[in-house]
Amino acid sequence: MKIFTKKKDLQEHIQTLRTTGRTVGFVPTMGFLHEGHLKLVEKSVADNDCTVMSIFVNPLQFGPKEDFHAYPKDHDQDQRLAENAGVNILFMPDVAEMYSQEHPFRITVLQRTDQLCGKSRPGHFDGVATILIKLFHIVHPQRVYFGLKDAQQISVVDSLIEYFEFPIELIAVETVREQDGLARSSRNVNLTNLERKEAPSLYKALQIGKQLIDEGEKNIGNVIEVVSNYIEKNTSGKIDYIDLLSFPELQPLQLVKGKVILAIAIQFSQARLIDNIILNVKE
Amino acid sequence: MKIFTKKKDLQEHIQTLRTTGRTVGFVPTMGFLHEGHLKLVEKSVADNDCTVMSIFVNPLQFGPKEDFHAYPKDHDQDQRLAENAGVNILFMPDVAEMYSQEHPFRITVLQRTDQLCGKSRPGHFDGVATILIKLFHIVHPQRVYFGLKDAQQISVVDSLIEYFEFPIELIAVETVREQDGLARSSRNVNLTNLERKEAPSLYKALQIGKQLIDEGEKNIGNVIEVVSNYIEKNTSGKIDYIDLLSFPELQPLQLVKGKVILAIAIQFSQARLIDNIILNVKE
Repeated sequence: MKIFTKKKDLQEHIQTLRTTGRTVGFVPTMGFLHEGHLKLVEKSVADNDCTVMSIFVNPLQFGPKEDFHAYPKDHDQDQRLAENAGVNILFMPDVAEMYSQEHPFRITVLQRTDQLCGKSRPGHFDGVATILIKLFHIVHPQRVYFGLKDAQQISVVDSLIEYFEFPIELIAVETVREQDGLARSSRNVNLTNLERKEAPSLYKALQIGKQLIDEGEKNIGNVIEVVSNYIEKNTSGKIDYIDLLSFPELQPLQLVKGKVILAIAIQFSQARLIDNIILNVKE
Repeated sequence: MKIFTKKKDLQEHIQTLRTTGRTVGFVPTMGFLHEGHLKLVEKSVADNDCTVMSIFVNPLQFGPKEDFHAYPKDHDQDQRLAENAGVNILFMPDVAEMYSQEHPFRITVLQRTDQLCGKSRPGHFDGVATILIKLFHIVHPQRVYFGLKDAQQISVVDSLIEYFEFPIELIAVETVREQDGLARSSRNVNLTNLERKEAPSLYKALQIGKQLIDEGEKNIGNVIEVVSNYIEKNTSGKIDYIDLLSFPELQPLQLVKGKVILAIAIQFSQARLIDNIILNVKE
């Protein structure tokens, strides 16, 4: 595994690869790798000649009150995990390498961000879009891999690629879960022991919602109420949102139909967890 | 010369070219071609295996009171001129092809736009930046060619390429002039006969400013006053601006030194003309 810290070095290296016809898959991360990230790498390794992973905790996507400085880090373990998973190139720039000056441009995301996590994180997806445009130009991949756990991120990246005509295929990868159903997340380490026991209730609540929809429930309020009741009875967390929207457009719906996302965010004492399921509902 | 109207077709065609090691030069235009554009093509043909020209009058860079619908067009002549000049690929999409939906993103240019033309054209460079990001992804050139007549555009594109890490070299090409010194422009056809006779005074005024600087004048106000007086005495146009700034940063200066631009914009009855010279001033 090659490690790059300078963007120009990596960009030149990839240009040479691409000129010789090699395909490049890209897994952008903020590090503190877990099974979810490694699943993305596994897919990329299967699809491409060369897999590039970036590890960069992007200050531009954290709000002033968010956990940028507390975001967990373990560079030694990340390098070991990445190499074992089959990453060919690891890109680990520092903040000065990625943002060397005042920002001469601002990207504003105008759609798909008024709901779910975007609602309580103004500017978050503007920061995500900005760093991705930069990384896409440095890494120049044919395919980029994101996990469906951050479904809104997938929705925004889908729009970013389409609007700006990036010649990149977005591959959305199933959420990786613990045995008990809890979605893998770098933030799970911040749960207390009690909260960790409660946390699988997010996925159970989503399954209960899915069952209701499978049985023919079309009323969105009814689905959300049942999911909400389950969460309130089975966790000490505070519901940030439970929502049912079209996917990937994230538009409000009149009835449960078409491709939909049932998504949930729960604030625990030191960790905010998200989860979702995406369903194709026949009319 | 191949003509493309569909972005996906062109993108695929260029990907094939690039995979076989061919270099691509790009000349983005709004059509109604003149010697200035053909000079850009000439440079690109000399530097690259394949030269792509786009012709697209981009509505996003026109203000609500500007001449989008009046912008001159002559597609037959453009095709003839482009082919004769050595363009290999002409990209002529319509507006629906480039903007098929509501805009899900907004690009805001935060630097280099508060002066010169940017001051009187709010949003203009936001529109330029947006279409260029899209075109750069479709055409995927190694080099892009712009004329120095639109010096502020060069300044913004320079910043766009750097900030977003585009692997593209910006080539700034000298302004092409008529025998009498008037800079070539698609808008020159909108001058009255009298104005056409006055119009070379823009370049003469810039030369007088240059001479003053060559003789050692360091005071910016003095240079601008002399240039301004010459314009007022020799044309019926209204001065929009005469300014002397650092280049390419377009920052105000205390004294005439370093790499500077002396730039001028004059509003005639039906045409607004711009011109500039760039100087390296020794201390």
